[in-house]
Amino acid sequence: MNVSLREFQVSTKGFCDIVDISDHVRNAIGDSGVSDGLAVISVAGSTASVTTIEFEPGVVEDLKVAIERMAPSGIEYRHDQRWGDGNGFAHVRAAMIGASFTVPVSGGSPVLGTWQQVVLLDFDNRPRRRSVFVQVLGE
Amino acid sequence: MNVSLREFQVSTKGFCDIVDISDHVRNAIGDSGVSDGLAVISVAGSTASVTTIEFEPGVVEDLKVAIERMAPSGIEYRHDQRWGDGNGFAHVRAAMIGASFTVPVSGGSPVLGTWQQVVLLDFDNRPRRRSVFVQVLGE
Amino acid sequence: MNVSLREFQVSTKGFCDIVDISDHVRNAIGDSGVSDGLAVISVAGSTASVTTIEFEPGVVEDLKVAIERMAPSGIEYRHDQRWGDGNGFAHVRAAMIGASFTVPVSGGSPVLGTWQQVVLLDFDNRPRRRSVFVQVLGE
Repeated sequence: MNVSLREFQVSTKGFCDIVDISDHVRNAIGDSGVSDGLAVISVAGSTASVTTIEFEPGVVEDLKVAIERMAPSGIEYRHDQRWGDGNGFAHVRAAMIGASFTVPVSGGSPVLGTWQQVVLLDFDNRPRRRSVFVQVLGE
Repeated sequence: MNVSLREFQVSTKGFCDIVDISDHVRNAIGDSGVSDGLAVISVAGSTASVTTIEFEPGVVEDLKVAIERMAPSGIEYRHDQRWGDGNGFAHVRAAMIGASFTVPVSGGSPVLGTWQQVVLLDFDNRPRRRSVFVQVLGE
Repeated sequence: MNVSLREFQVSTKGFCDIVDISDHVRNAIGDSGVSDGLAVISVAGSTASVTTIEFEPGVVEDLKVAIERMAPSGIEYRHDQRWGDGNGFAHVRAAMIGASFTVPVSGGSPVLGTWQQVVLLDFDNRPRRRSVFVQVLGE
Protein backbone atom coordinates (compact mmCIF):
# COMPACT_ATOMS: atom_id res chain seq x y z
CA MET A 1 0.00 0.00 0.00
CA ASN A 2 1.00 3.56 -0.68
CA VAL A 3 0.26 6.30 1.88
CA SER A 4 1.09 9.86 0.91
CA LEU A 5 0.29 13.08 2.76
CA ARG A 6 0.55 16.46 1.09
CA GLU A 7 0.03 19.75 2.90
CA PHE A 8 -0.48 23.03 1.08
CA GLN A 9 -1.29 26.57 2.10
CA VAL A 10 -4.27 28.56 0.84
CA SER A 11 -4.67 32.29 1.42
CA THR A 12 -8.29 33.32 1.90
CA LYS A 13 -10.25 36.49 2.51
CA GLY A 14 -12.43 34.89 5.19
CA PHE A 15 -16.17 35.76 5.38
CA CYS A 16 -17.25 32.65 3.52
CA ASP A 17 -14.51 32.89 0.92
CA ILE A 18 -14.80 29.86 -1.37
CA VAL A 19 -11.58 28.75 -3.09
CA ASP A 20 -11.18 26.09 -5.78
CA ILE A 21 -8.49 23.66 -4.57
CA SER A 22 -9.04 21.00 -7.25
CA ASP A 23 -5.60 21.48 -8.80
CA HIS A 24 -3.93 20.99 -5.41
CA VAL A 25 -5.93 17.79 -4.95
CA ARG A 26 -5.06 16.47 -8.42
CA ASN A 27 -1.38 17.29 -7.92
CA ALA A 28 -1.30 15.59 -4.54
CA ILE A 29 -2.82 12.44 -6.04
CA GLY A 30 -0.47 12.58 -9.02
CA ASP A 31 2.59 13.01 -6.78
CA SER A 32 1.53 10.11 -4.57
CA GLY A 33 1.88 7.57 -7.35
CA VAL A 34 -1.42 6.03 -6.26
CA SER A 35 -3.52 4.79 -9.17
CA ASP A 36 -6.46 3.30 -7.24
CA GLY A 37 -7.60 4.15 -3.76
CA LEU A 38 -8.97 7.25 -2.11
CA ALA A 39 -8.08 10.77 -1.04
CA VAL A 40 -9.13 12.56 2.14
CA ILE A 41 -9.06 16.35 1.74
CA SER A 42 -9.21 18.12 5.10
CA VAL A 43 -8.63 21.51 6.65
CA ALA A 44 -7.05 21.97 10.07
CA GLY A 45 -9.04 24.39 12.18
CA SER A 46 -12.58 24.90 13.40
CA THR A 47 -13.79 27.75 11.17
CA ALA A 48 -13.38 26.26 7.68
CA SER A 49 -14.82 23.41 5.62
CA VAL A 50 -14.21 21.33 2.51
CA THR A 51 -16.90 20.27 0.01
CA THR A 52 -17.55 20.11 -3.75
CA ILE A 53 -19.45 22.49 -6.02
CA GLU A 54 -19.63 23.61 -9.64
CA PHE A 55 -17.15 26.43 -9.29
CA GLU A 56 -18.84 29.24 -11.22
CA PRO A 57 -19.43 32.69 -9.67
CA GLY A 58 -23.23 32.44 -9.63
CA VAL A 59 -23.44 29.19 -7.64
CA VAL A 60 -20.60 30.25 -5.37
CA GLU A 61 -22.57 33.39 -4.47
CA ASP A 62 -25.77 31.32 -4.05
CA LEU A 63 -23.99 29.04 -1.60
CA LYS A 64 -22.79 32.02 0.44
CA VAL A 65 -26.37 33.30 0.67
CA ALA A 66 -27.67 29.91 1.79
CA ILE A 67 -24.96 29.54 4.44
CA GLU A 68 -25.73 33.05 5.70
CA ARG A 69 -29.36 31.91 6.06
CA MET A 70 -28.33 28.69 7.84
CA ALA A 71 -26.11 30.45 10.41
CA PRO A 72 -26.53 34.23 10.10
CA SER A 73 -23.61 36.54 10.86
CA GLY A 74 -25.84 39.25 12.33
CA ILE A 75 -27.28 37.41 15.34
CA GLU A 76 -25.85 36.84 18.81
CA TYR A 77 -23.50 33.94 19.46
CA ARG A 78 -22.48 32.83 22.95
CA HIS A 79 -19.00 32.13 21.67
CA ASP A 80 -18.59 35.84 21.01
CA GLN A 81 -19.93 36.79 24.44
CA ARG A 82 -17.36 34.51 26.05
CA TRP A 83 -14.34 35.07 23.85
CA GLY A 84 -14.99 38.29 21.95
CA ASP A 85 -13.76 36.76 18.73
CA GLY A 86 -16.80 37.82 16.74
CA ASN A 87 -16.58 34.62 14.69
CA GLY A 88 -19.19 32.46 16.41
CA PHE A 89 -21.06 32.12 13.12
CA ALA A 90 -17.90 30.73 11.51
CA HIS A 91 -17.54 27.96 14.10
CA VAL A 92 -21.17 26.92 13.71
CA ARG A 93 -20.99 26.86 9.92
CA ALA A 94 -17.82 24.78 9.88
CA ALA A 95 -19.31 22.18 12.24
CA MET A 96 -22.42 21.88 10.07
CA ILE A 97 -20.70 21.64 6.67
CA GLY A 98 -17.76 19.54 7.83
CA ALA A 99 -13.97 19.71 7.84
CA SER A 100 -13.17 16.99 5.32
CA PHE A 101 -14.25 15.41 2.05
CA THR A 102 -13.32 11.91 0.86
CA VAL A 103 -13.24 10.90 -2.79
CA PRO A 104 -12.41 7.65 -4.60
CA VAL A 105 -9.25 7.67 -6.74
CA SER A 106 -9.21 5.72 -10.00
CA GLY A 107 -6.55 5.73 -12.71
CA GLY A 108 -4.59 8.33 -10.76
CA SER A 109 -7.46 10.86 -10.68
CA PRO A 110 -10.19 11.78 -8.22
CA VAL A 111 -13.59 10.42 -9.28
CA LEU A 112 -15.54 13.66 -9.75
CA GLY A 113 -18.06 15.01 -12.23
CA THR A 114 -16.92 17.27 -15.05
CA TRP A 115 -18.29 20.37 -13.35
CA GLN A 116 -17.58 19.29 -9.79
CA GLN A 117 -14.70 21.05 -8.08
CA VAL A 118 -13.24 20.55 -4.61
CA VAL A 119 -13.44 23.78 -2.62
CA LEU A 120 -12.19 25.20 0.65
CA LEU A 121 -14.72 27.39 2.50
CA ASP A 122 -13.23 29.85 4.96
CA PHE A 123 -15.93 31.11 7.32
CA ASP A 124 -13.69 33.13 9.63
CA ASN A 125 -14.11 36.88 10.05
CA ARG A 126 -10.68 37.84 8.72
CA PRO A 127 -8.19 36.79 6.03
CA ARG A 128 -6.45 33.54 6.90
CA ARG A 129 -3.65 31.37 5.63
CA ARG A 130 -5.04 27.83 5.78
CA SER A 131 -3.32 24.47 6.00
CA VAL A 132 -5.10 22.00 3.77
CA PHE A 133 -4.16 18.31 3.73
CA VAL A 134 -4.60 15.60 1.12
CA GLN A 135 -4.01 12.09 2.43
CA VAL A 136 -3.90 9.55 -0.42
CA LEU A 137 -4.15 5.80 0.25
CA GLY A 138 -4.08 3.07 -2.34
CA GLU A 139 -1.83 1.22 -4.72
CA MET B 1 -4.25 -4.51 0.56
CA ASN B 2 -7.33 -4.88 -1.56
CA VAL B 3 -8.68 -1.92 -3.54
CA SER B 4 -11.94 -2.40 -5.41
CA LEU B 5 -14.04 0.18 -7.24
CA ARG B 6 -17.62 -0.53 -8.27
CA GLU B 7 -19.73 1.86 -10.34
CA PHE B 8 -23.47 1.50 -10.66
CA GLN B 9 -26.24 3.53 -12.26
CA VAL B 10 -29.28 4.85 -10.44
CA SER B 11 -32.30 6.32 -12.20
CA THR B 12 -33.89 9.14 -10.25
CA LYS B 13 -36.84 11.49 -10.62
CA GLY B 14 -34.81 14.53 -9.51
CA PHE B 15 -36.46 17.19 -7.28
CA CYS B 16 -34.93 15.79 -4.09
CA ASP B 17 -35.61 12.19 -5.00
CA ILE B 18 -34.15 10.01 -2.23
CA VAL B 19 -33.14 6.47 -3.25
CA ASP B 20 -32.01 3.63 -0.98
CA ILE B 21 -28.69 2.36 -2.37
CA SER B 22 -27.77 0.11 0.58
CA ASP B 23 -27.99 -3.10 -1.46
CA HIS B 24 -25.60 -1.69 -4.05
CA VAL B 25 -23.19 -0.77 -1.27
CA ARG B 26 -23.42 -4.20 0.37
CA ASN B 27 -22.93 -5.95 -2.97
CA ALA B 28 -19.91 -3.81 -3.81
CA ILE B 29 -18.33 -4.66 -0.46
CA GLY B 30 -19.19 -8.34 -0.87
CA ASP B 31 -17.74 -8.47 -4.39
CA SER B 32 -14.53 -6.75 -3.25
CA GLY B 33 -13.54 -9.62 -0.98
CA VAL B 34 -12.59 -7.06 1.68
CA SER B 35 -13.40 -8.21 5.21
CA ASP B 36 -12.04 -5.24 7.19
CA GLY B 37 -11.48 -1.70 5.96
CA LEU B 38 -13.72 1.04 4.70
CA ALA B 39 -16.00 2.03 1.84
CA VAL B 40 -16.36 5.46 0.24
CA ILE B 41 -19.73 5.93 -1.44
CA SER B 42 -19.75 8.93 -3.78
CA VAL B 43 -21.78 10.44 -6.57
CA ALA B 44 -20.20 12.15 -9.57
CA GLY B 45 -21.83 15.49 -10.28
CA SER B 46 -22.63 18.71 -8.48
CA THR B 47 -26.39 18.38 -7.90
CA ALA B 48 -26.59 15.18 -5.84
CA SER B 49 -25.48 13.92 -2.43
CA VAL B 50 -24.97 10.75 -0.40
CA THR B 51 -25.91 10.33 3.26
CA THR B 52 -27.65 7.86 5.60
CA ILE B 53 -31.21 7.83 6.95
CA GLU B 54 -33.86 5.46 8.27
CA PHE B 55 -35.47 4.78 4.93
CA GLU B 56 -39.17 4.96 5.73
CA PRO B 57 -41.56 7.22 3.76
CA GLY B 58 -42.30 9.57 6.66
CA VAL B 59 -38.70 10.51 7.45
CA VAL B 60 -37.83 10.68 3.77
CA GLU B 61 -40.60 13.25 3.29
CA ASP B 62 -39.48 15.10 6.43
CA LEU B 63 -35.95 15.37 5.06
CA LYS B 64 -37.25 16.79 1.78
CA VAL B 65 -39.17 19.46 3.68
CA ALA B 66 -36.11 20.40 5.75
CA ILE B 67 -33.91 20.64 2.66
CA GLU B 68 -36.51 22.82 0.95
CA ARG B 69 -36.33 25.09 4.00
CA MET B 70 -32.51 25.12 3.94
CA ALA B 71 -32.25 26.06 0.25
CA PRO B 72 -35.72 26.87 -1.12
CA SER B 73 -36.58 26.12 -4.74
CA GLY B 74 -38.80 29.20 -5.11
CA ILE B 75 -36.24 31.97 -4.57
CA GLU B 76 -33.79 33.56 -6.98
CA TYR B 77 -30.41 31.99 -7.63
CA ARG B 78 -27.62 33.75 -9.50
CA HIS B 79 -26.69 30.48 -11.13
CA ASP B 80 -30.06 30.51 -12.91
CA GLN B 81 -29.64 34.13 -14.00
CA ARG B 82 -26.30 33.25 -15.56
CA TRP B 83 -26.98 29.83 -17.04
CA GLY B 84 -30.76 29.51 -17.20
CA ASP B 85 -30.60 25.97 -15.85
CA GLY B 86 -33.21 26.60 -13.18
CA ASN B 87 -31.35 24.24 -10.82
CA GLY B 88 -29.42 26.70 -8.66
CA PHE B 89 -31.11 25.30 -5.57
CA ALA B 90 -29.85 21.83 -6.47
CA HIS B 91 -26.22 22.96 -6.61
CA VAL B 92 -26.46 24.71 -3.26
CA ARG B 93 -28.09 21.72 -1.56
CA ALA B 94 -25.50 19.29 -2.90
CA ALA B 95 -22.61 21.43 -1.65
CA MET B 96 -24.17 21.67 1.81
CA ILE B 97 -25.05 17.98 2.27
CA GLY B 98 -21.95 16.61 0.55
CA ALA B 99 -21.12 14.27 -2.33
CA SER B 100 -19.73 11.29 -0.42
CA PHE B 101 -20.16 9.18 2.70
CA THR B 102 -17.48 6.97 4.25
CA VAL B 103 -18.25 3.96 6.41
CA PRO B 104 -16.10 1.38 8.22
CA VAL B 105 -16.26 -2.19 6.90
CA SER B 106 -16.08 -5.09 9.36
CA GLY B 107 -16.62 -8.78 8.67
CA GLY B 108 -17.45 -7.98 5.05
CA SER B 109 -20.31 -5.61 5.92
CA PRO B 110 -20.68 -1.84 6.33
CA VAL B 111 -20.89 -0.82 9.99
CA LEU B 112 -24.36 0.73 10.09
CA GLY B 113 -27.30 0.71 12.47
CA THR B 114 -30.22 -1.64 11.88
CA TRP B 115 -32.44 1.16 10.61
CA GLN B 116 -29.71 3.15 8.91
CA GLN B 117 -29.68 3.02 5.12
CA VAL B 118 -27.30 4.63 2.63
CA VAL B 119 -29.20 6.93 0.29
CA LEU B 120 -28.59 8.93 -2.87
CA LEU B 121 -30.27 12.35 -2.94
CA ASP B 122 -30.85 13.80 -6.38
CA PHE B 123 -31.56 17.52 -6.12
CA ASP B 124 -31.63 18.30 -9.85
CA ASN B 125 -34.75 19.66 -11.53
CA ARG B 126 -35.27 16.73 -13.91
CA PRO B 127 -34.95 12.95 -13.95
CA ARG B 128 -31.34 11.82 -14.09
CA ARG B 129 -29.33 8.66 -14.51
CA ARG B 130 -26.61 8.89 -11.85
CA SER B 131 -23.20 7.26 -11.60
CA VAL B 132 -22.58 6.18 -8.04
CA PHE B 133 -19.22 4.78 -6.93
CA VAL B 134 -18.23 2.51 -4.07
CA GLN B 135 -14.49 2.39 -3.44
CA VAL B 136 -13.59 -0.36 -0.95
CA LEU B 137 -10.16 -0.51 0.72
CA GLY B 138 -9.00 -3.07 3.20
CA GLU B 139 -7.91 -6.65 3.56
CA MET C 1 -1.28 -2.37 5.60
CA ASN C 2 -2.72 -2.16 9.04
CA VAL C 3 -6.51 -2.17 9.58
CA SER C 4 -7.79 -1.66 13.08
CA LEU C 5 -11.37 -1.18 14.27
CA ARG C 6 -12.17 0.11 17.74
CA GLU C 7 -15.68 0.38 19.13
CA PHE C 8 -16.51 2.39 22.23
CA GLN C 9 -19.68 3.32 24.05
CA VAL C 10 -20.77 6.89 24.80
CA SER C 11 -23.62 7.75 27.14
CA THR C 12 -25.56 10.82 26.03
CA LYS C 13 -28.50 12.86 27.25
CA GLY C 14 -30.04 13.09 23.77
CA PHE C 15 -31.73 16.35 22.65
CA CYS C 16 -28.68 17.50 20.69
CA ASP C 17 -26.21 16.48 23.35
CA ILE C 18 -22.71 17.18 22.02
CA VAL C 19 -19.90 15.04 23.46
CA ASP C 20 -16.16 15.44 22.92
CA ILE C 21 -14.84 12.04 21.74
CA SER C 22 -11.35 13.23 20.75
CA ASP C 23 -9.61 11.15 23.41
CA HIS C 24 -11.36 8.00 22.20
CA VAL C 25 -10.24 8.80 18.66
CA ARG C 26 -6.63 9.45 19.70
CA ASN C 27 -6.54 6.26 21.75
CA ALA C 28 -7.94 4.19 18.90
CA ILE C 29 -5.28 5.56 16.56
CA GLY C 30 -2.55 5.00 19.14
CA ASP C 31 -3.67 1.43 19.81
CA SER C 32 -3.78 0.65 16.08
CA GLY C 33 -0.06 1.14 15.65
CA VAL C 34 -0.77 3.11 12.45
CA SER C 35 1.60 6.02 11.94
CA ASP C 36 0.33 7.29 8.58
CA GLY C 37 -3.08 6.77 7.03
CA LEU C 38 -6.58 7.79 7.97
CA ALA C 39 -9.31 7.27 10.53
CA VAL C 40 -13.06 7.01 9.90
CA ILE C 41 -15.10 7.94 12.97
CA SER C 42 -18.73 6.83 12.64
CA VAL C 43 -21.81 6.32 14.74
CA ALA C 44 -24.21 3.44 14.17
CA GLY C 45 -27.81 4.63 14.10
CA SER C 46 -29.94 7.16 12.30
CA THR C 47 -30.38 9.86 14.95
CA ALA C 48 -26.77 10.87 15.66
CA SER C 49 -23.86 12.48 13.83
CA VAL C 50 -20.10 13.01 14.01
CA THR C 51 -18.32 16.28 13.17
CA THR C 52 -15.61 18.60 14.53
CA ILE C 53 -15.91 21.80 16.54
CA GLU C 54 -13.98 23.94 19.00
CA PHE C 55 -15.34 22.28 22.11
CA GLU C 56 -16.11 25.23 24.37
CA PRO C 57 -19.55 25.71 25.97
CA GLY C 58 -20.41 28.86 24.02
CA VAL C 59 -19.92 27.41 20.54
CA VAL C 60 -21.52 24.13 21.56
CA GLU C 61 -24.65 26.04 22.59
CA ASP C 62 -24.51 28.10 19.39
CA LEU C 63 -24.44 24.93 17.31
CA LYS C 64 -27.47 23.57 19.14
CA VAL C 65 -29.39 26.77 18.37
CA ALA C 66 -28.44 26.62 14.68
CA ILE C 67 -29.46 22.97 14.40
CA GLU C 68 -32.78 23.75 16.08
CA ARG C 69 -33.29 26.43 13.41
CA MET C 70 -32.33 24.02 10.60
CA ALA C 71 -34.75 21.27 11.71
CA PRO C 72 -36.97 22.57 14.52
CA SER C 73 -38.20 20.23 17.24
CA GLY C 74 -41.56 21.99 17.57
CA ILE C 75 -43.01 21.38 14.10
CA GLU C 76 -44.84 18.37 12.68
CA TYR C 77 -42.91 15.44 11.25
CA ARG C 78 -44.53 12.68 9.23
CA HIS C 79 -42.24 10.17 10.90
CA ASP C 80 -43.96 10.93 14.20
CA GLN C 81 -47.43 10.63 12.67
CA ARG C 82 -46.53 7.17 11.38
CA TRP C 83 -44.46 5.79 14.22
CA GLY C 84 -45.23 7.95 17.23
CA ASP C 85 -41.57 8.10 18.17
CA GLY C 86 -41.56 11.87 18.53
CA ASN C 87 -38.00 12.00 17.18
CA GLY C 88 -38.61 12.93 13.54
CA PHE C 89 -36.45 16.03 14.00
CA ALA C 90 -33.57 13.82 15.17
CA HIS C 91 -33.66 11.70 12.01
CA VAL C 92 -33.68 14.74 9.75
CA ARG C 93 -30.80 16.41 11.59
CA ALA C 94 -28.65 13.28 11.47
CA ALA C 95 -29.16 12.87 7.72
CA MET C 96 -28.18 16.50 7.11
CA ILE C 97 -25.07 16.61 9.33
CA GLY C 98 -23.86 13.09 8.53
CA ALA C 99 -22.97 9.91 10.39
CA SER C 100 -19.20 9.86 9.89
CA PHE C 101 -16.10 12.02 9.74
CA THR C 102 -12.81 11.06 8.11
CA VAL C 103 -9.45 12.53 9.11
CA PRO C 104 -5.89 12.01 7.89
CA VAL C 105 -3.50 10.35 10.36
CA SER C 106 0.14 11.47 10.45
CA GLY C 107 2.82 10.49 12.94
CA GLY C 108 0.28 8.46 14.88
CA SER C 109 -2.11 11.40 15.43
CA PRO C 110 -5.21 12.74 13.72
CA VAL C 111 -4.47 15.84 11.64
CA LEU C 112 -6.65 18.41 13.41
CA GLY C 113 -6.31 22.03 14.45
CA THR C 114 -5.33 22.89 18.02
CA TRP C 115 -8.88 23.92 18.92
CA GLN C 116 -10.65 21.35 16.75
CA GLN C 117 -12.25 18.45 18.60
CA VAL C 118 -14.13 15.44 17.25
CA VAL C 119 -17.65 15.34 18.64
CA LEU C 120 -20.62 13.01 18.74
CA LEU C 121 -24.01 14.74 18.37
CA ASP C 122 -26.97 12.82 19.72
CA PHE C 123 -30.20 14.25 18.33
CA ASP C 124 -32.57 11.66 19.77
CA ASN C 125 -35.33 12.60 22.22
CA ARG C 126 -34.04 10.53 25.12
CA PRO C 127 -30.75 9.49 26.75
CA ARG C 128 -28.91 6.89 24.69
CA ARG C 129 -25.90 4.66 24.93
CA ARG C 130 -24.16 5.02 21.56
CA SER C 131 -21.79 2.74 19.70
CA VAL C 132 -19.07 4.81 18.08
CA PHE C 133 -16.49 3.25 15.74
CA VAL C 134 -13.00 4.30 14.74
CA GLN C 135 -11.63 2.42 11.74
CA VAL C 136 -7.92 3.17 11.22
CA LEU C 137 -6.16 2.25 7.96
CA GLY C 138 -2.53 2.85 7.16
CA GLU C 139 0.97 1.70 7.91
